[in-house]
Amino acid sequence: MQTIEVKTKSRPSTVYCGKGAAEKARDILRGKDVFVVTDANVFRLYEKWAGDMFGDAPICVVPAGERHKNRGTLFAILDKMLDARLNRGSVLVALGGGVVGDMAGLAASLYMRGIHAVQVPTTLLAQVDSSVGGKTAIDHRGVKNVIGAFYQPEYVLCDPMFLHTLPPRELRCGLGEIVKTGALDADILDKLEKNSDRLFDLSFMEDVTADCVRFKAGVVEKDECERNGLRKCLNMGHTTGHALELFYGRRSHGEYVLIGMYFESIIAERKGVCSRVYAEQLRALIQKVIGRIPKFRNIGEAARVALFDKKNEGKNEVSLILPKTRGGFAEAKLSIGDYVGMIEEIGGGVL
Amino acid sequence: MQTIEVKTKSRPSTVYCGKGAAEKARDILRGKDVFVVTDANVFRLYEKWAGDMFGDAPICVVPAGERHKNRGTLFAILDKMLDARLNRGSVLVALGGGVVGDMAGLAASLYMRGIHAVQVPTTLLAQVDSSVGGKTAIDHRGVKNVIGAFYQPEYVLCDPMFLHTLPPRELRCGLGEIVKTGALDADILDKLEKNSDRLFDLSFMEDVTADCVRFKAGVVEKDECERNGLRKCLNMGHTTGHALELFYGRRSHGEYVLIGMYFESIIAERKGVCSRVYAEQLRALIQKVIGRIPKFRNIGEAARVALFDKKNEGKNEVSLILPKTRGGFAEAKLSIGDYVGMIEEIGGGVL
Repeated sequence: MQTIEVKTKSRPSTVYCGKGAAEKARDILRGKDVFVVTDANVFRLYEKWAGDMFGDAPICVVPAGERHKNRGTLFAILDKMLDARLNRGSVLVALGGGVVGDMAGLAASLYMRGIHAVQVPTTLLAQVDSSVGGKTAIDHRGVKNVIGAFYQPEYVLCDPMFLHTLPPRELRCGLGEIVKTGALDADILDKLEKNSDRLFDLSFMEDVTADCVRFKAGVVEKDECERNGLRKCLNMGHTTGHALELFYGRRSHGEYVLIGMYFESIIAERKGVCSRVYAEQLRALIQKVIGRIPKFRNIGEAARVALFDKKNEGKNEVSLILPKTRGGFAEAKLSIGDYVGMIEEIGGGVL
Repeated sequence: MQTIEVKTKSRPSTVYCGKGAAEKARDILRGKDVFVVTDANVFRLYEKWAGDMFGDAPICVVPAGERHKNRGTLFAILDKMLDARLNRGSVLVALGGGVVGDMAGLAASLYMRGIHAVQVPTTLLAQVDSSVGGKTAIDHRGVKNVIGAFYQPEYVLCDPMFLHTLPPRELRCGLGEIVKTGALDADILDKLEKNSDRLFDLSFMEDVTADCVRFKAGVVEKDECERNGLRKCLNMGHTTGHALELFYGRRSHGEYVLIGMYFESIIAERKGVCSRVYAEQLRALIQKVIGRIPKFRNIGEAARVALFDKKNEGKNEVSLILPKTRGGFAEAKLSIGDYVGMIEEIGGGVL
């Protein structure tokens, strides 16, 4: 098990990564007033474990799925916190994937202006990405994560035991963010390429998870609230990926990030931001995870959704984080017409 | 005009205090994407001024009054922010009293995980207290400020021009927090006592506002998120005051704070926390602002409401910030029975 400290300005966060991380909860929560938030899927699988770990702490079970990451579920959690008469010394434990972590994290940040939060991510995606760094949010009126807070959890417990019950779709999803991290860190990229035949091995995932967390911790420490531009790099592939995710649904977030990276690597190549050789290396790695890249019907319309992505501050252009060199990136601003046209050309067509 | 810097860890805040402070908005907002939140009362009085100051920026007018400081109004503001397609570089201006400031400040903190906020407090209460220090919140299910965030505004513009349109009730309300500040700062207390015959003069209020802001800035810098206990001192009078306010309504927040302080000064005296001489000095000053202290019907029941006040972390006791010496305070924990009994004895009876 590895210990990674995330030294943010607002409050430091400790991440335990590896076998035994979840057991750390016993020490962390001893003597505390605990409130657990999980979703119906995780609860079905880990009800017994949770009972053993959290004793008689109230467990708030929310419906599973991103479509429930909304105001209604957020206030259902807050209401249960009020019912449980939590106070500012209480600890909220978010046991689940990114949706539970984002929503429960936001509830923890809002209740009495902030109680202690412990993230216990149960998906690969949440372990390598969303549980670390303090981003919390709900979706609202079709805009992803538009209401939220930066709020650091006190502890994050990334335990590979949870990966055993994950369906392949969820593993692919997490690998999406792992490959993205590789595109931002040359050492991780080397490791992924060297191990491209065992990307789906749990032992490999466990190993690379700590690398990804350490990379993300470094970024978050330097730019906690996405103010100086550095943290934006974590959005590589996300502008296009989010747009496709919102428009088409069905596939997982991480897969759409990979598809977004795939398309954007072509844009990077055409704009002369990165070499063909490197762009092809990235695309080969992406295809190792998700296979053939599909064509999308009406993709121009989907791409226009990206224009309202909240990362795009200006209103008449799209901001993309493009791959540049191994582990390096560049921010590029494209006009709406240019962006939509390229996406249509690259990803359009009828399935 | 005075400039007071609030150097908090999360982000610094600049307060302009005095004549001309509101005019500062022109410089601050130049070239920015601005969104104004105000309430119906303020809008009626300052519509022309706002049009002149904010040009064609969208103005979101919410209904006036604490009973609208709720989830519904918060999301109405957020929806209008989405409609206005605000981005992370936009600036929200909260033009109004504490309710507008709390709610709009929370909306600014939540929208895209935080956009810039400028507080333009139009009540004495908001100028001396709520607009400074970054506390934002809404009430929920009868619990005051139970959902909120610590989120520092970039600027606070405390301009006495707004005080001219305030009804006496609102001036008394602000004086409540000013007298509370006096109980925490001996210099301010001296000034209040020396000027006890002109407490209601606008020129005196203008002068003492900057003192109160400077005092509060010092507290907030040392304990931004109410974690180390120091910021708690600002809640003097509030435990009992909040309870009475929730139970009886009608009077203003600041008046209830004064009534709370009045009752709690008697508790402090009885518990040997402060001398009779000092307690009487405080009560004399309080009565200069609100006159005779009323008796309350069923006050025991009202006092029990305080048990669920969110400042009371333990569930079987009440935490009070009691006056100790001139400018000094002590935190005291009383059992439920003890507290309710004393409040009944001190403030009970039939009107």
